[in-house]
Amino acid sequence: MKVSIISIGDELLIGQTINTNASWLGAELSKRGADISRIHTISDQENEIIQTLDCTLKRADIVIITGGLGPTQDDITKNVLTKYFQDELVIHHETLERVRNFFTQRNLPFLDVNIQQAMIPKNCIVLNNLEGTAPGMWFEKDGKIIISLPGVPHEMKTIMLQEVLPRIEKIISPIKYYSKTANLQGIGESYIAEKMKIWEQSIRENNLELAYLPSTGLVRLRISSKKGNEDVERIENFFHELQQALPNNFYGVGDETLAQIVGKLLIKNKCTVGTAESCTAGDLAAEFVSIPNASTYFKGGIISYSNELKQQLLHVNKNNLETYGAVSEQVVTEMAVNGRNILSVDYCIATSGIAGPTGNTTSKPIGTTWIAIASKDKVITKKFVFEQNRQRNIRRTVLSALNMIRLILVGS
Amino acid sequence: MKVSIISIGDELLIGQTINTNASWLGAELSKRGADISRIHTISDQENEIIQTLDCTLKRADIVIITGGLGPTQDDITKNVLTKYFQDELVIHHETLERVRNFFTQRNLPFLDVNIQQAMIPKNCIVLNNLEGTAPGMWFEKDGKIIISLPGVPHEMKTIMLQEVLPRIEKIISPIKYYSKTANLQGIGESYIAEKMKIWEQSIRENNLELAYLPSTGLVRLRISSKKGNEDVERIENFFHELQQALPNNFYGVGDETLAQIVGKLLIKNKCTVGTAESCTAGDLAAEFVSIPNASTYFKGGIISYSNELKQQLLHVNKNNLETYGAVSEQVVTEMAVNGRNILSVDYCIATSGIAGPTGNTTSKPIGTTWIAIASKDKVITKKFVFEQNRQRNIRRTVLSALNMIRLILVGS
Repeated sequence: MKVSIISIGDELLIGQTINTNASWLGAELSKRGADISRIHTISDQENEIIQTLDCTLKRADIVIITGGLGPTQDDITKNVLTKYFQDELVIHHETLERVRNFFTQRNLPFLDVNIQQAMIPKNCIVLNNLEGTAPGMWFEKDGKIIISLPGVPHEMKTIMLQEVLPRIEKIISPIKYYSKTANLQGIGESYIAEKMKIWEQSIRENNLELAYLPSTGLVRLRISSKKGNEDVERIENFFHELQQALPNNFYGVGDETLAQIVGKLLIKNKCTVGTAESCTAGDLAAEFVSIPNASTYFKGGIISYSNELKQQLLHVNKNNLETYGAVSEQVVTEMAVNGRNILSVDYCIATSGIAGPTGNTTSKPIGTTWIAIASKDKVITKKFVFEQNRQRNIRRTVLSALNMIRLILVGS
Repeated sequence: MKVSIISIGDELLIGQTINTNASWLGAELSKRGADISRIHTISDQENEIIQTLDCTLKRADIVIITGGLGPTQDDITKNVLTKYFQDELVIHHETLERVRNFFTQRNLPFLDVNIQQAMIPKNCIVLNNLEGTAPGMWFEKDGKIIISLPGVPHEMKTIMLQEVLPRIEKIISPIKYYSKTANLQGIGESYIAEKMKIWEQSIRENNLELAYLPSTGLVRLRISSKKGNEDVERIENFFHELQQALPNNFYGVGDETLAQIVGKLLIKNKCTVGTAESCTAGDLAAEFVSIPNASTYFKGGIISYSNELKQQLLHVNKNNLETYGAVSEQVVTEMAVNGRNILSVDYCIATSGIAGPTGNTTSKPIGTTWIAIASKDKVITKKFVFEQNRQRNIRRTVLSALNMIRLILVGS
């Protein structure tokens, strides 16, 4: 079952909005065995929509269109589709009622412009939108399915999960495809390729495919099979070998994030954690708290961005700050040890680095970062020299810190 | 000058990686007057690459391809292009030298696999990659330009900025297009549309286009003209009217973020800021520090995620916590006032909310959030009821807090 995605919106072409919808759709559909053949991003112009639909319907069985269903005048998708399917717009009373309730429940006035949201092509199946006002639409033509969804990500996702995917699951004949991804932190792709040369060769000799997916601070390795579930065990074995070879880097498989894995380990070990952050300034704590119920193990943190607050809130020794500088093993150790006592937690993670673009010295280039983790009876410290980019340095510090505590928690 | 973008990679189709490259390319190229006609995302298969190239070259003057140039075996773009242009791979000595230095300078070993990165099609122009090992390539064929770049975002961006855009700027005859975007916080698109009905009609009567770009907590309004710079003043006037009509929501124009604007206002007013965070748990502080040189005004913060740390670090009254709960005006006020003293800052912003998916009560549904900002002589508090989603509730709290301090700093 071939699926193509059409993302409509000038804002996607001129880069004002990143196309996260297409990624999410790709992930959900391929999980269910659909073959995502192409993603087309086009402008919100009638002729572009029609041309792309014509062309895409030749190659795909299902076409999913997002965008252009909002209540404002720049939203043209519904009108273009009505014309394309030689249909007409009629009031859909259930939708009108739903849209009215949507505003009433939120104590918001019901506006004239919102009535338009209940005008729907006569011959389509209405896909209820519980998160917003524009319903989705399901058209069928010459054995093909065309689905139109709003572009607002959480509305699109809710309609997909509640209305579209259950219908597609009944229709789809899954292609024989299976893939699984291993996640590694703190090692670059060429080093993995070098170290795992024979392993990689063996993967290919088994007619499996290996893909490297590098991102800031992480490399994901996807092994996929065109024989579907037959290869599940073989792939498991390869991941087992990878884990044996790179235990300090291999942190998990699939979509689970490092923060989720660390969270689970903290719960399992019945431990609490806190942070004493300088260069990451709250990003590490926020990464912990991005996981629901993080309050079980995450208690709080101190962001001591200035040297004064390092002394005042974390009792860092003034002499150490003056002698070694804020980005030093001595200071980051004090931050972690004192932070642990102040926050009354089992582990305190401290970060101090030069994120850039300024603040560097001859001996401490931009990217120089110290991380310390204090536990009851010891402190582990590690120095990194990352790169020139502020955002990436912060991100790499957060991921490296999470991997350091992961290694402590698994006892290696 | 029509530009098409081809993004290569199964990881993009199956949603393992979000296509941020295409957005960035779209933004940089359209800024320079190029007309981004389409973005195609395809899998890393020879026939897909060739078919899409054939088809795209009929419609576009410039085609930019990203992905598939890495050092590992799953990277096929270079070989496919060499074949497509009936070229052959030869050693490019300058690149070999550069790749060797790249590893030497980082104290990393030079691997065999990296030599391949210096094998380049004979007839292309080599585009130096100062951030990584795979160089970009510039091909010309039948008056069209085809550019191949690595998929790693910062490598792609550096090659574009240093090697590609300067060349394209010389060639391009900009289309007559001008656009500017206004940014609003804390108001939904249908309310803007209702309130600004006459304004919107007047925009269209002036043959300008208006687009609504909603995202979590923000709506961006883009006005664009097909007469180019002729309409600059007219668009400025429309934005002036918008600002007059919605002063509490309108925070700026263009790409400047709310954190950047608040940062500039803090510098201008010579004020410092700190945070006392519960539900946002460091995200608000991290948003301040995402801006270079934030240390000028941002001093630090306290993340009191647990009630114990709210008492211990921020001296929140135990009775208030028990009587009103952590998510209450009383508690968030104490957090802000005490946080301001403890952090010795001019303004302290406190957040406390129920981000979800658990923690709600009958009187406090998920999404209930209090924000307080304490200054020398007063405290401003505001209650919000956001939505059901944890990540979006955190994000909306951060943006609402930044907009609240913005309004204080501009004196309204």
